Amino acid sequence: MVARTLKLGAFMRPVSIHTGAWRYPGAYPDANFNFAHLKRFAQRLEQARFDAFFMADHLAVLNMPLNALARSHTVTSFEPFTLLSALAGATEHIGLVATASTTFDQPFHVARRFASLDHLSGGRAGWNIVTTANPDAALNFGLTEHVEHDERYRRAREFFDVVTGLWDSFADDAFVRDVEAGIYFDAARLHVLDHRGKHYSVRGPLNIARPVQGWPVIVQAGASEAGRQLAAETAEVVFAAQSTLEGARRFYADVKGRLERLGRHPDTLKILPGALVVVGDTVQEAQEKRARLDSLVHFDSSIASLSIALGCDASRFDPDAPLPEIPPTNAGQSGRERAIELARRERLTVRQLAQRLGGFGGLAFVGTPGTIADQMEEWLVQNGCDGFNIMFPYLPGGLDDFVDRVVPELQRRGLFRREYEGRTLRENLGLARPPNRFFPTAAAAR
Amino acid sequence: MVARTLKLGAFMRPVSIHTGAWRYPGAYPDANFNFAHLKRFAQRLEQARFDAFFMADHLAVLNMPLNALARSHTVTSFEPFTLLSALAGATEHIGLVATASTTFDQPFHVARRFASLDHLSGGRAGWNIVTTANPDAALNFGLTEHVEHDERYRRAREFFDVVTGLWDSFADDAFVRDVEAGIYFDAARLHVLDHRGKHYSVRGPLNIARPVQGWPVIVQAGASEAGRQLAAETAEVVFAAQSTLEGARRFYADVKGRLERLGRHPDTLKILPGALVVVGDTVQEAQEKRARLDSLVHFDSSIASLSIALGCDASRFDPDAPLPEIPPTNAGQSGRERAIELARRERLTVRQLAQRLGGFGGLAFVGTPGTIADQMEEWLVQNGCDGFNIMFPYLPGGLDDFVDRVVPELQRRGLFRREYEGRTLRENLGLARPPNRFFPTAAAAR
Repeated sequence: MVARTLKLGAFMRPVSIHTGAWRYPGAYPDANFNFAHLKRFAQRLEQARFDAFFMADHLAVLNMPLNALARSHTVTSFEPFTLLSALAGATEHIGLVATASTTFDQPFHVARRFASLDHLSGGRAGWNIVTTANPDAALNFGLTEHVEHDERYRRAREFFDVVTGLWDSFADDAFVRDVEAGIYFDAARLHVLDHRGKHYSVRGPLNIARPVQGWPVIVQAGASEAGRQLAAETAEVVFAAQSTLEGARRFYADVKGRLERLGRHPDTLKILPGALVVVGDTVQEAQEKRARLDSLVHFDSSIASLSIALGCDASRFDPDAPLPEIPPTNAGQSGRERAIELARRERLTVRQLAQRLGGFGGLAFVGTPGTIADQMEEWLVQNGCDGFNIMFPYLPGGLDDFVDRVVPELQRRGLFRREYEGRTLRENLGLARPPNRFFPTAAAAR
Repeated sequence: MVARTLKLGAFMRPVSIHTGAWRYPGAYPDANFNFAHLKRFAQRLEQARFDAFFMADHLAVLNMPLNALARSHTVTSFEPFTLLSALAGATEHIGLVATASTTFDQPFHVARRFASLDHLSGGRAGWNIVTTANPDAALNFGLTEHVEHDERYRRAREFFDVVTGLWDSFADDAFVRDVEAGIYFDAARLHVLDHRGKHYSVRGPLNIARPVQGWPVIVQAGASEAGRQLAAETAEVVFAAQSTLEGARRFYADVKGRLERLGRHPDTLKILPGALVVVGDTVQEAQEKRARLDSLVHFDSSIASLSIALGCDASRFDPDAPLPEIPPTNAGQSGRERAIELARRERLTVRQLAQRLGGFGGLAFVGTPGTIADQMEEWLVQNGCDGFNIMFPYLPGGLDDFVDRVVPELQRRGLFRREYEGRTLRENLGLARPPNRFFPTAAAAR
């Protein structure tokens, strides 16, 4: 029994991140766009005591050539707030983390939808703050040029301040509902934000009571300098993307160090690397499954994924030569750095790199329940992470394998909960409820 | 048995529009903000075969003095998409109509959320297009001055064109999911909108399959010249606000006439006036209930409601004098005209007008199940409407009265369905599924 235990999110897009997933034998080809399937997946994850159903998102699909797009199951997807609200009614414990963009949405809308999801779910909402790296998204929102990387992060920081300020519009005890006196809420327990900043002017108040969790749990995924700093200043969960334990330990130490310099206790932020998990009866069988899965990704689709990761057109490169020097872009930095590092480390050609990324190029645990639990334990003990954001290779089989075989092994070792600790996502993650900045009460400080 | 039957929506805000509702004896004071209650209400409405649960919305609450706001149960409310998505999972037949603003949201977001709600609910979504008359909403979205009335409607028309164009991104049969060939969708069955208009530039495609209903049902409520014309050009349901049969017949003839001039069949748009229904064992008992309900509205709150309706500060007026001349404003015109007309018609003082509007100043059927059914029948037969958008005086009692007593009477007279006619909201309303403008098929023309 170790002192720390793993936190586990399920990274759903809304299903597998692997573009070959829908073609795997036995997989549901429509898994990502069938509510009955998604409901069952969420319920299975809850039975396994997962912390959260984490829904990634994208605001444009025309970011790859049409022949590549036509091979991808992610081209049609439910919208996060509608899907997670529907899942809220079908589950009781699992956290529901929605991705929302600070570049292409309004703070009032975002604050309101998360507060509403938090109330509907009894305190299970989380906000994955993204600045939206995909330059094609701008074209769906009337912008011909994408906002530059660091500027997006400056806007994101102000956006966060507005959203959290709006969540604090009403004191937790504002709603007295005194039928006799005709007083619905105590007017002295309402704060009008009246934010006037560099990028946003928002009066408030929000037209919804303070969220059950005070604030929904704040999630962040940026790996660039600006992204790490935003995470250290605002996040409570970081979805990390390091693919080696050594890199993960450096990232973990860096982000936790930033927290301490800001006066935050390191435990107030959980770092969860994304990990593809492929389970077999033997390590060899698991490796064969993975190879079969990768073989189902078409080359056109792989090269498109590589283009997205690099932020430039990779089909111009010689597929059988090493990766050339890539100029900097305004797109997200984390995918780019990861791809370049992977190509250099494993001396991959463009084609090899594309095929790896076209499937999934990041951290993968491929083995038996025992070897997978060994690796997860090592990452935890070596301070490479506080848990993982699990990616399933295909659905439902890959999810069932994890829930039926890996989770019991983790529980047997005392590495993962057998029962939920609390009622809210925040309580299960061991995070304090933030006090209302305008109406400080006896609630534990963050 | 009459040839035409009534269509019935339930106007939820998300509960009663009447500001005294939460104080009525036996009412749930938190009805509008308690998901368990709302789920039960939606399920009861579905058992009664209502066409739709219609959710009104507001994007600002600080549009009245704090002392008035503090007496209102509408100050805290769920956000429409999250609430209706959660209700989608708890119901099977009833339509789910969400209000979304063309002034303060983006066409890509709106198109996507409605498509997602339509898929999640199996074809039960409707979009109540509003241009957001409340000038205080602008302050929550970085605008210091509200967009002028007619300009809002011009933007709304373009917004509608973009949203419907995005819904048509994929042909209905685009998703072939050919596992063997690795083809997820037929690239020739995808249309890139590439809209570049006066107010919006949106490339597309939408990242979600075409809605189950082709397009969610289009709902509109404007009563001004610009509002009526937008309705005639785009809407399939109009939520009307006439309080007299004579006025309703004029409105009905005007809007249906506009349809014919546009080459649309009159049956392709259903006109549903909002109606508060108060049921008693006798007409006198019903009238006493209504008087009691109105008495629960505080004067501060009434005067604030009057100010919103008029678009100016009514607390400046002598409460015991007749209503003075009101200058035109950029706020919505329909509430203003209705208030002025009511004051003139019934020779009300400012105070009397405020008390009527503070409760509910529009059409009310107050009587026994028999007299209420008589009035509804007369409105239908006299071409004053195609049905009603029912407002309940308080919850749950007012809703239960309607469902248990009025609906059976309407059914006995053959004025209302006993079973749903179809699977989708569109089918129940008797509206054709719109063909895809980019991929015309054999589907019935609209």
